[in-house]
Amino acid sequence: MLHVIGLGLGDSTDITVKGLEIIRMCDRVYLESYTSILSTNLKDLERFYGCSILEADRELVESNADEILPKDEKENVAFLVVGDPFGATTHSDLILRAREKDIKVKIVHNSSILTAIGCCGLQLYRFGETVSIPYWNNDWQPNSFYEKIISNRQRDLHTLCLLDIKIKEPTIESIAKKKKEYMPSQFMSVSEAATQLLKIIEEKNEETKEEPVLEESSLVVGLARVGWDNQRIIACSLGEMASIDLGPPLHSLIIPAINLHPLELEFITLYKCK
Amino acid sequence: MLHVIGLGLGDSTDITVKGLEIIRMCDRVYLESYTSILSTNLKDLERFYGCSILEADRELVESNADEILPKDEKENVAFLVVGDPFGATTHSDLILRAREKDIKVKIVHNSSILTAIGCCGLQLYRFGETVSIPYWNNDWQPNSFYEKIISNRQRDLHTLCLLDIKIKEPTIESIAKKKKEYMPSQFMSVSEAATQLLKIIEEKNEETKEEPVLEESSLVVGLARVGWDNQRIIACSLGEMASIDLGPPLHSLIIPAINLHPLELEFITLYKCK
Repeated sequence: MLHVIGLGLGDSTDITVKGLEIIRMCDRVYLESYTSILSTNLKDLERFYGCSILEADRELVESNADEILPKDEKENVAFLVVGDPFGATTHSDLILRAREKDIKVKIVHNSSILTAIGCCGLQLYRFGETVSIPYWNNDWQPNSFYEKIISNRQRDLHTLCLLDIKIKEPTIESIAKKKKEYMPSQFMSVSEAATQLLKIIEEKNEETKEEPVLEESSLVVGLARVGWDNQRIIACSLGEMASIDLGPPLHSLIIPAINLHPLELEFITLYKCK
Repeated sequence: MLHVIGLGLGDSTDITVKGLEIIRMCDRVYLESYTSILSTNLKDLERFYGCSILEADRELVESNADEILPKDEKENVAFLVVGDPFGATTHSDLILRAREKDIKVKIVHNSSILTAIGCCGLQLYRFGETVSIPYWNNDWQPNSFYEKIISNRQRDLHTLCLLDIKIKEPTIESIAKKKKEYMPSQFMSVSEAATQLLKIIEEKNEETKEEPVLEESSLVVGLARVGWDNQRIIACSLGEMASIDLGPPLHSLIIPAINLHPLELEFITLYKCK
């Protein structure tokens, strides 16, 4: 059987009791290590779970998934995912491959950044479509996420912006070579995301004379390391967010609806910059 | 300190190791018992956690919250919530009351129906605003949720419909009396929700001649007891869903986007009625 187990967001103790019991009886245990990070390292997880863990990078999961799947009916394999197992598309693919081979699949859910952001006090049922903000480079500066933020805001909905993560991405030069070389890991900060948004707003304002739906003075919420012991939340203007340092990754940015519920407003006030 | 601890969706073992460790050192433990249910009962939870648990109904949480909060700095109180602590508005209120009194609050996240529905194979980042479908009665038949479903569908987004739950609601007759009497618990099924949607569609079609965005033949997904051992998922037309029995609560209904990603389509096909 393939067990896809969510680890939650913080440290080794954020696994569920059910998940831990399953890991301890599995023959092989993989940790998906390229879409998110925990506050702890592999050695600590191994010590806490009482077993050795194989790292599963993007190449293994997307190109050699059969290596991960159980070899026969008796083998139990655990595939560990930070957050909830269904946060990233790529795990649906692994599950489908297992089902195609008539391998049974069991899911153990856990918390996900998609709901844990409720800790800032904005109501989860008022969030519209989630967007991802990617790193720009000289040739590639997509801004389709901006239109989605505006569309949510026009319908009085909040937007969660997931910020780009680059873990173990091959360098362009090395792709042609036999031996892959990887870029250093990169995690977009709330200030980088706010800076990109401000650039888009500036360009749009030059094009049109309409009243802006999102502007430099709009309230935004920055969250860092949600679910970790050193979690931080800051509510300030988009302009201010561009120069705020919330420390180490992971960061997320929320663009709230224009109108807040009194309870939301009271909660968010706890996180305002003094 | 007030510890607000998510229990996840299934049984007693869906709590996180962190959550369990905190419960075991708390002086008082409450279980919020009116916005959701687990597959297990209070006695089993008490046995597994190794402590006695007080039930917190709507009246206690919304009208007498101070009773729940720690009496002094030394007291540790656990407030247990099915799913994630931030699924229901009312818990934001409890946290704000604690903060007002300078009581420290710690959150232990867990899985929520809002993300666990990813198990049907529809991508979580393609969900628009979540809606709630309430029970209708003779005098009150709101349908604002329908417009939100249509708005999501027009932007090629999925909609999660949370279905009405009535637990320990006082009868209208008893509200005037000194002694409250309660209605039997009610949990809306996917077939009841589909039936209400079909009625709205019928009325709208009479009003307009436009091409319908949602119709009897549209694909919908019914989910029952997500995260429980006896979880069920069915994909069929809205018309068929009106006569499908997915068994005991809780049920949720998803109205997918009109266009599915090939991976979503492949996954959903696993759940098609044969």
